[in-house]
Amino acid sequence: MTKTIRSDVEPFYYQYPSTVAVVSSRSRSRSNAMAVAWHTTISRRPPRYGVLIFPDTFTHELILESNEFVVNFMTIESANLIARLGGCSGREVDKFEAFEIAATSGSTVSAPVLEAAYASYECRVFSHQEYGDHDLFVGDVVAVQFEDSAYSMNGTTDIRKVTPVAYVGEDRYASINDPVYHDRHAL
Amino acid sequence: MTKTIRSDVEPFYYQYPSTVAVVSSRSRSRSNAMAVAWHTTISRRPPRYGVLIFPDTFTHELILESNEFVVNFMTIESANLIARLGGCSGREVDKFEAFEIAATSGSTVSAPVLEAAYASYECRVFSHQEYGDHDLFVGDVVAVQFEDSAYSMNGTTDIRKVTPVAYVGEDRYASINDPVYHDRHAL
Repeated sequence: MTKTIRSDVEPFYYQYPSTVAVVSSRSRSRSNAMAVAWHTTISRRPPRYGVLIFPDTFTHELILESNEFVVNFMTIESANLIARLGGCSGREVDKFEAFEIAATSGSTVSAPVLEAAYASYECRVFSHQEYGDHDLFVGDVVAVQFEDSAYSMNGTTDIRKVTPVAYVGEDRYASINDPVYHDRHAL
Repeated sequence: MTKTIRSDVEPFYYQYPSTVAVVSSRSRSRSNAMAVAWHTTISRRPPRYGVLIFPDTFTHELILESNEFVVNFMTIESANLIARLGGCSGREVDKFEAFEIAATSGSTVSAPVLEAAYASYECRVFSHQEYGDHDLFVGDVVAVQFEDSAYSMNGTTDIRKVTPVAYVGEDRYASINDPVYHDRHAL
């Protein structure tokens, strides 16, 4: 093992892989979907989820207009779609049409819920904050839609049934699998 | 595929799996390490990374005192350690001693850099914001340490060489592997 230490941090890719979500949005009959690798749970009670969005994007515009977004959690089967979402702008292409994305309106928001997602969080914007070259949108999770078969009885994701996707960088994706159990209180 | 829709969102585990990082901190000769599944890149330029920390934790106290933290990106081989980090508090146990964690002080911060990490971001606190039951610490990434063999020539993580770890929930962990390429501009 040999480590390199750098104080000039760029390129800034060492943190990957990260899980990928698709953020969908809708305002004034215009919808969009973009893939994000920068996202995280923010709070359990109240339930809040956060996504980092580049200000120039169509998604940023639609979220600001609608104060809503949906975070869709995806599997490796969607990796090709996820890649292509990043290859064009929703200002020029209706991605739902172009890529034949099956979706329905949320139950509490108008933003689309992707059928292929194993879970989707319907969010209303709680806060919007600039943090450098991206903006953090924190959403109150007002509803969740989830694929029944993807969860075990205790509510955890059953990755023997679904294979969530991670982004590795440079258009490379990976699978999350091989679950193992480690008791935090084991000696 | 059958989907359930809920507006009472708890339990709030549908978003998992998420990658795991170990956040290390140090203040007045006391060090700590905690595992977090709630973390994300925040900004590329300037490079910033964010972690969500529960206010009652020893880590929260140490970061507030020192204005520093390190985010360590870990592999599946550390899953057992990661589990055990969550089984006790750094107020009661010196986890570095108890779990024999090999670490050195950062190059620019005093917080520990874990030897087993494939990459570690040394961070100085840029902002600290309450967002529900957790606080978001956003750090300026002032230095990175990374394992040379874990990265390919273009700077992306080579997951054929290292197997990053994800948290699935309920003390279950998983591996990120099987890289695939999808051209975003493919027809």
